[in-house]
Amino acid sequence: ITAVVSSEDWHFSPLIIVILGASGDLAAKKTYPSLFSLYTSGLLPKQFKIIGYARSPKTIESFREHVGKYLSDDGNGGVDKQRFLENCDYINGKSYGDEDAFKVVNTSIQTFSPVANKLFYFAIPASTFAVSATTIKTTIMGEGWLRIILEKPFGHDLESCRELTESLAQSYDEENLYRIDHYLGKEMVQNLMTLRFSNLYFSRLWDSQSIAAVLLTFKEPFGTDGRGGYFDRYGIVRDIIQNHLMQVLCLIAMEPPLKVDGSSSDQIRTNKVNVLKAIEAISIEDVVLGQYEGYRDDPTVPDNSTTSTFCALKLHINTPRWEGVPFILKAGKALDERKAEIRIQFKDAPAASFMFDTPVPRNELVIRLQPREAIYIKTNVKTPGFSSQPVQSELEVDYTTRFGASDSKNNPDAYTRLILEVLRGRSAGFVRKDELEEAWRIFTPLLHQIERERQMPIIYQQGTRGPEHDVKVEEWGYLRNSEYVYYNGAVVPKSKI
Amino acid sequence: ITAVVSSEDWHFSPLIIVILGASGDLAAKKTYPSLFSLYTSGLLPKQFKIIGYARSPKTIESFREHVGKYLSDDGNGGVDKQRFLENCDYINGKSYGDEDAFKVVNTSIQTFSPVANKLFYFAIPASTFAVSATTIKTTIMGEGWLRIILEKPFGHDLESCRELTESLAQSYDEENLYRIDHYLGKEMVQNLMTLRFSNLYFSRLWDSQSIAAVLLTFKEPFGTDGRGGYFDRYGIVRDIIQNHLMQVLCLIAMEPPLKVDGSSSDQIRTNKVNVLKAIEAISIEDVVLGQYEGYRDDPTVPDNSTTSTFCALKLHINTPRWEGVPFILKAGKALDERKAEIRIQFKDAPAASFMFDTPVPRNELVIRLQPREAIYIKTNVKTPGFSSQPVQSELEVDYTTRFGASDSKNNPDAYTRLILEVLRGRSAGFVRKDELEEAWRIFTPLLHQIERERQMPIIYQQGTRGPEHDVKVEEWGYLRNSEYVYYNGAVVPKSKI
Amino acid sequence: ITAVVSSEDWHFSPLIIVILGASGDLAAKKTYPSLFSLYTSGLLPKQFKIIGYARSPKTIESFREHVGKYLSDDGNGGVDKQRFLENCDYINGKSYGDEDAFKVVNTSIQTFSPVANKLFYFAIPASTFAVSATTIKTTIMGEGWLRIILEKPFGHDLESCRELTESLAQSYDEENLYRIDHYLGKEMVQNLMTLRFSNLYFSRLWDSQSIAAVLLTFKEPFGTDGRGGYFDRYGIVRDIIQNHLMQVLCLIAMEPPLKVDGSSSDQIRTNKVNVLKAIEAISIEDVVLGQYEGYRDDPTVPDNSTTSTFCALKLHINTPRWEGVPFILKAGKALDERKAEIRIQFKDAPAASFMFDTPVPRNELVIRLQPREAIYIKTNVKTPGFSSQPVQSELEVDYTTRFGASDSKNNPDAYTRLILEVLRGRSAGFVRKDELEEAWRIFTPLLHQIERERQMPIIYQQGTRGPEHDVKVEEWGYLRNSEYVYYNGAVVPKSKI
Amino acid sequence: ITAVVSSEDWHFSPLIIVILGASGDLAAKKTYPSLFSLYTSGLLPKQFKIIGYARSPKTIESFREHVGKYLSDDGNGGVDKQRFLENCDYINGKSYGDEDAFKVVNTSIQTFSPVANKLFYFAIPASTFAVSATTIKTTIMGEGWLRIILEKPFGHDLESCRELTESLAQSYDEENLYRIDHYLGKEMVQNLMTLRFSNLYFSRLWDSQSIAAVLLTFKEPFGTDGRGGYFDRYGIVRDIIQNHLMQVLCLIAMEPPLKVDGSSSDQIRTNKVNVLKAIEAISIEDVVLGQYEGYRDDPTVPDNSTTSTFCALKLHINTPRWEGVPFILKAGKALDERKAEIRIQFKDAPAASFMFDTPVPRNELVIRLQPREAIYIKTNVKTPGFSSQPVQSELEVDYTTRFGASDSKNNPDAYTRLILEVLRGRSAGFVRKDELEEAWRIFTPLLHQIERERQMPIIYQQGTRGPEHDVKVEEWGYLRNSEYVYYNGAVVPKSKI
Repeated sequence: ITAVVSSEDWHFSPLIIVILGASGDLAAKKTYPSLFSLYTSGLLPKQFKIIGYARSPKTIESFREHVGKYLSDDGNGGVDKQRFLENCDYINGKSYGDEDAFKVVNTSIQTFSPVANKLFYFAIPASTFAVSATTIKTTIMGEGWLRIILEKPFGHDLESCRELTESLAQSYDEENLYRIDHYLGKEMVQNLMTLRFSNLYFSRLWDSQSIAAVLLTFKEPFGTDGRGGYFDRYGIVRDIIQNHLMQVLCLIAMEPPLKVDGSSSDQIRTNKVNVLKAIEAISIEDVVLGQYEGYRDDPTVPDNSTTSTFCALKLHINTPRWEGVPFILKAGKALDERKAEIRIQFKDAPAASFMFDTPVPRNELVIRLQPREAIYIKTNVKTPGFSSQPVQSELEVDYTTRFGASDSKNNPDAYTRLILEVLRGRSAGFVRKDELEEAWRIFTPLLHQIERERQMPIIYQQGTRGPEHDVKVEEWGYLRNSEYVYYNGAVVPKSKI
Repeated sequence: ITAVVSSEDWHFSPLIIVILGASGDLAAKKTYPSLFSLYTSGLLPKQFKIIGYARSPKTIESFREHVGKYLSDDGNGGVDKQRFLENCDYINGKSYGDEDAFKVVNTSIQTFSPVANKLFYFAIPASTFAVSATTIKTTIMGEGWLRIILEKPFGHDLESCRELTESLAQSYDEENLYRIDHYLGKEMVQNLMTLRFSNLYFSRLWDSQSIAAVLLTFKEPFGTDGRGGYFDRYGIVRDIIQNHLMQVLCLIAMEPPLKVDGSSSDQIRTNKVNVLKAIEAISIEDVVLGQYEGYRDDPTVPDNSTTSTFCALKLHINTPRWEGVPFILKAGKALDERKAEIRIQFKDAPAASFMFDTPVPRNELVIRLQPREAIYIKTNVKTPGFSSQPVQSELEVDYTTRFGASDSKNNPDAYTRLILEVLRGRSAGFVRKDELEEAWRIFTPLLHQIERERQMPIIYQQGTRGPEHDVKVEEWGYLRNSEYVYYNGAVVPKSKI
Repeated sequence: ITAVVSSEDWHFSPLIIVILGASGDLAAKKTYPSLFSLYTSGLLPKQFKIIGYARSPKTIESFREHVGKYLSDDGNGGVDKQRFLENCDYINGKSYGDEDAFKVVNTSIQTFSPVANKLFYFAIPASTFAVSATTIKTTIMGEGWLRIILEKPFGHDLESCRELTESLAQSYDEENLYRIDHYLGKEMVQNLMTLRFSNLYFSRLWDSQSIAAVLLTFKEPFGTDGRGGYFDRYGIVRDIIQNHLMQVLCLIAMEPPLKVDGSSSDQIRTNKVNVLKAIEAISIEDVVLGQYEGYRDDPTVPDNSTTSTFCALKLHINTPRWEGVPFILKAGKALDERKAEIRIQFKDAPAASFMFDTPVPRNELVIRLQPREAIYIKTNVKTPGFSSQPVQSELEVDYTTRFGASDSKNNPDAYTRLILEVLRGRSAGFVRKDELEEAWRIFTPLLHQIERERQMPIIYQQGTRGPEHDVKVEEWGYLRNSEYVYYNGAVVPKSKI
Repeated sequence: ITAVVSSEDWHFSPLIIVILGASGDLAAKKTYPSLFSLYTSGLLPKQFKIIGYARSPKTIESFREHVGKYLSDDGNGGVDKQRFLENCDYINGKSYGDEDAFKVVNTSIQTFSPVANKLFYFAIPASTFAVSATTIKTTIMGEGWLRIILEKPFGHDLESCRELTESLAQSYDEENLYRIDHYLGKEMVQNLMTLRFSNLYFSRLWDSQSIAAVLLTFKEPFGTDGRGGYFDRYGIVRDIIQNHLMQVLCLIAMEPPLKVDGSSSDQIRTNKVNVLKAIEAISIEDVVLGQYEGYRDDPTVPDNSTTSTFCALKLHINTPRWEGVPFILKAGKALDERKAEIRIQFKDAPAASFMFDTPVPRNELVIRLQPREAIYIKTNVKTPGFSSQPVQSELEVDYTTRFGASDSKNNPDAYTRLILEVLRGRSAGFVRKDELEEAWRIFTPLLHQIERERQMPIIYQQGTRGPEHDVKVEEWGYLRNSEYVYYNGAVVPKSKI
């Protein structure tokens, strides 16, 4: 890949990266390390400069020291790190719309090169997006492209999202705005199109004739840990479901594009939007909400908060491919484990229960996004040995053992991948404004109803599976095989055979 | 399973097993150890007796000592072995049709129990099958069922097979004759119906719409090793293909039975016969024959032998499910490795090469019968990391790591499994006479033509893949992915990613 | 076809046909006319003789006159008729087991030819089948084949069926017994295998993935008309459903045979039996019974009769092809019209209701057995003209306009077809004993329960659609499109467009 | 439909229609009669005015007389016609860019109503499109929408098409430009989406798994008849294939839209464009060109013309649905008949030839666009009568007998339908600029090569099927069933049965 990237035009041009909000957590923990990772992989242009911009006055030295703490020392005595930091500058301003300060940034850019490509990374509150964009428009000059990376939240409902979108549209064309949903940078999410379209055995089965249900799960084993104030204004639906899980859902459900790569970015996103357009606004009847016990003990959370920390819901996609298939989305905090996974449950093998004189469990394709990336298909085999009864096992590829995926070289961070995509001008992995709006259209009525009615969610214990008994996944169409245990590489005990 | 078996009727009746040819290799290496294995697993009735019968005069003691050498000492100080051997008797006669000697056997049986179930295991030359059967008919008395196990060869062409079949039919009903093809006792062969019919994702794809080609391979890394005399009269087609591989083919290709188990044994065999009926006699045009260099150096092999030690051939099944799909059968001696496996190659993912701008290899389901049982599907994933190109990996279940299959308790020998089936009266795993005849109908014209024309096969080096360049599997419809390496549990080297 | 038949062996041999029960209605109205039809079509051997046998003493002349009344005068001044009748003899006996009389028959046969093929047509009560068969066995001599045609009823439940079957088996091999179900002789029933297996667009859709429900309907517009005595002992289930409709169901549901014709007759029947084996005994919960008002006014019907003249029921076939698809069988007397038809209702076009913003009716393949044979598929088209709404029309082939099917030359009677099949030794179109037994196994528990409980069926008006509101076909899975009218060749009125 | 239309907003607003080129043939024969038809169907707003504009000075009276000749007298003594013509005005100008004259038009419009919706119909040479559009832009005022209908040719290759498109884009948004391809107004073409998406039995089979080939045919029984001058500059590819047949192909091949109607017009057109994008530029190897004998005798045609009057070609669509399926497009003049039809040929019924012991012809869905609209499926049935051989018949709906389609009320002219769509603002049935460009991209290299090389096409006789022997449709994948005759409502002669 380095060879491919190195031969692309942009790689021969000077590059300026301006990180707004450079002194914040996101910048230090994600943005700079990702850029450093690209640097050490030889994926940045030879001539590049990174300008940190924030409100706090800092010396370059102290800033570099701050940033440097989060860069992994790659075993060459810090030489790479040292060279990288020498390309990092810092400028501070009064605000994220401080025209004078931005002019200083511009001067710095022009000095570096008047023909540099320019990437602005907005690691700043959404409320300042518009003013920053306008100020950049009026102050930053020179040839070369100018692209902007934005981070969620992109509004809190349909109306606020549209406002934000429109205010940005006044300064920049949609094609220069790269809205990050970091789930789109995960290995297994990026894998979805390859899995679906390059494998006959998936492509043939990828529809309502063969699929019984799709289940997307996000679980975190911890709560808000004293920082619930921010979360409380959003809740789990906005935090995880409306954006991350819906993006994954779109990639699972979209129609095949003409090309997976590059040239048809817009077709990919159009196909994703078409999935969303085929989904009706979620009804409260199809939703289960929960709040973990102790959530309101967080001092930053209001005592009477009705915010959900758990949500399970069901939706349908009204297309020939998907009509009748339930898509179940589940996300929760303070649950029993950390896990994000996709489960494609296939229909019953026809007449198998009759043929085998015993209930035969369903096949299920599981794509584990994290932790420990893996793909497996729950598959029935004859019980090994004398018996002829079927038993459920699995065919698996574990990315750690198969591809050394725990090594960051083999498995770069989502942000690293996505920033590289921006530099290459490949926008398929970013959220287009109509995707945003359609996703909000689907969730806004539900969210408004919840906020209006202020009903208390179901309280669940921390460290559990959440209000499981209230989530009727079986009624929704997803069947659990309670017999099955995922053995995770271990040999099945003899007693099971 | 022990619980199930123990509750069946036959398990409460006395059981006599008579092994004709008890002093031979097969008996010592396969039959007795299998019976011992059933004994230690508690699968034989409490009251049982095994009578060895052969032509050589031996004392019981020396016979027991001979047999005992091949029984594994199961860690309990030989107690089990001792007890087992105490149930083993030995009787000798002048021939396998010696009426007087058989009467002695009968007396021994009646003394043991006049109502015993009786199993005769024919570990004797096929030329003596008929006379032994007749003699048993006239000499062995008493209630209880009487079943006969036969071993190949069942003739050497259609006519000789029919003769044999008819001569046996005069003494015994088809339902009491159990013809062993030990491939039908292998774990992965017994697994085929479960795989096909209990998994939607296989059952949906199991036809000519999704399958491009089926490849059955048998490879042995050694030649005839000085015992080629017997082999030379048969050749690889009769030794491996016409029986073992065709049996496996039938299970791959057959239509679903009403029940997988027990009650519909005959439907299973009828469905297998229907596969054979839909195959035309093999044409020499679709066959490649080979002989390894040095074969004729074996002193027991004629100097001008034209017998094949390698054969690859293609056939078609004229049914709605299979029309147009090539079935390729390959077997050879003195090749590069020991392997028996089934490869179901799926069609190209439609338009994938266009969508990914690169050739996309086909999915392939590989079922490895031996060594080290495993099932895997060659599956395309995104190259891990920055690249978005597809690369071929595999989803796998390895029976050794998953089920401890190298342990004989978890993975009993084929003979052990099959003898238990005979005792239970389950005939689905044995070869019915019409199966035999149809298989011979398919191969007889080819075999006769080869023998008539006496053309020399292609000579190939020992330890190679055989006359590979002459076997045009690609022309026959099976595509190799030369890029792909099966990593067998190892991590892919970074350079491949 | 005449050319094909004329070249078959049997056509060059002398043929004797003995009709037991020759003076009865069936013989006069069906058997003799069918034979005459074969004769005029040149399908009988040159040398043939027909011996009528019955209990009433008659002269040959009066018998010929009697039979002649039912033969259509084919426009050649009765020359054919005259010649045909000259080959018709008549012999009477004291009973259908009168050995002396049968010896007379034998003498007549030997005189005609000692090497004649012999066909016995049993147009006699089932209670005399066994004795007639035995007597034939002992009295009728000579070379040439001897085949027997039997007519229903074949018992009234499983036990009586088995008795009958076994008594016949003592005298004749199954292969010489031809049990007629005249539904198997109908053009459209004989068409089923061609339709299913020679048309890709049916074969691809012929399973539970595409078919929502199958409906078989038999309707008669008249009641028992004073002859209800016989009917009352059987009822509609035995009279129509257990035999005729189940035979049709088997042909709709069976797996593809190797060959449609000749050589694989037994595979066809084995495949039919396998359908029956996959059906569980009918439960009373899945049955609606009716009796038309006035049925008990028939003087030959008991005043308190609870016999059903209408029945609708639902069953399932537990095979991979059919699991989940309801088969609905409906038969009734004194209904609104005469009709026998098969309706294969396909599933909803996926997402069509969403795509067209209106409910979209299902496709339905209708095969009309009688009257006026036709095949049509209810198909949605754009409403012709300015509108873009879908409207249901049909693609049709009407056998009368397309093939002149009202002409008996183009569309011979079922009996004529079946007798020819017997002469040709083609047994696929006749009912084998295991089919009979499986069909009775399915219905016997239901019939016994009905008879035991003696509940009164629902009373319905004559000339109506029966107790329609009690038959919940929609709950069973078959949806009516109440908008649709079958226009039967007429132009749709403008107002509908 | 009248009810629906009457309730739409535009129907309550005044409407002005300006026909540029009003004195030409197209206007007189198509545009005015279509408007009159809408008028008599009550589909025009109450308040409407039609202004004819052309270069020839005419009085209103003479113009009305001219136009009136082509309006059918609807049986009410010409009252409707009279009233309609009263709304028809005529204005002449020096050119189609005559600003002064257009100002007169504007005055006339303003007088009629300052808030009228305005439809400009360009029945003028393409060379004047740009100047007319610009002049309208600068001279025509007032509220209400302004839409323009354009007629082909839209350029003669990719470059000229782009020029035209860009010049129009300077004055008008794409959404106000309605490019007519009158094939999109034909009943059966408009029917395609309903057929495909509202019928399960088509939607399930509509892909490369079931379809062997698609054949689109256009045949005219007459040549250029002395008016070949215009045609000679274009040739048959530009005249028929690149536009009409490719539009039909797009509708056959496109992926399902979210909605068939209204709201997703743009998705429909996007999906059509995606079909074109998946087609590579046509290679000369896949093309057969012909010229009818006598074409160059037309005095308006150059003596050495190499223009083709016949073309057959094959192309492929690189999508998962269509990969591997040949699309064959054929168009010709001076052939044996008038016909435009779509043939979807399905694959062989699997193993049918083996099962029936005879070659079994393929199913084919035929959609006849003209003359006499009909849909039929070539279907195999048992030969009626004694034979069991399959014979090919068809299931059909004939629009004339079924829907009275020969009546213009039931089957309005394509132009009438399309003008109504423009008035309703429904653009799905019109050609978007990217469709145009993609279609030209596919054909331009071929056309340029033909013109560069100036090879003579194959000469064929008038009144024949064209250079049939040179068109290897069988090699391309479409099989003819030479046995089959379409009986067109007639009874099959007995001899065929």
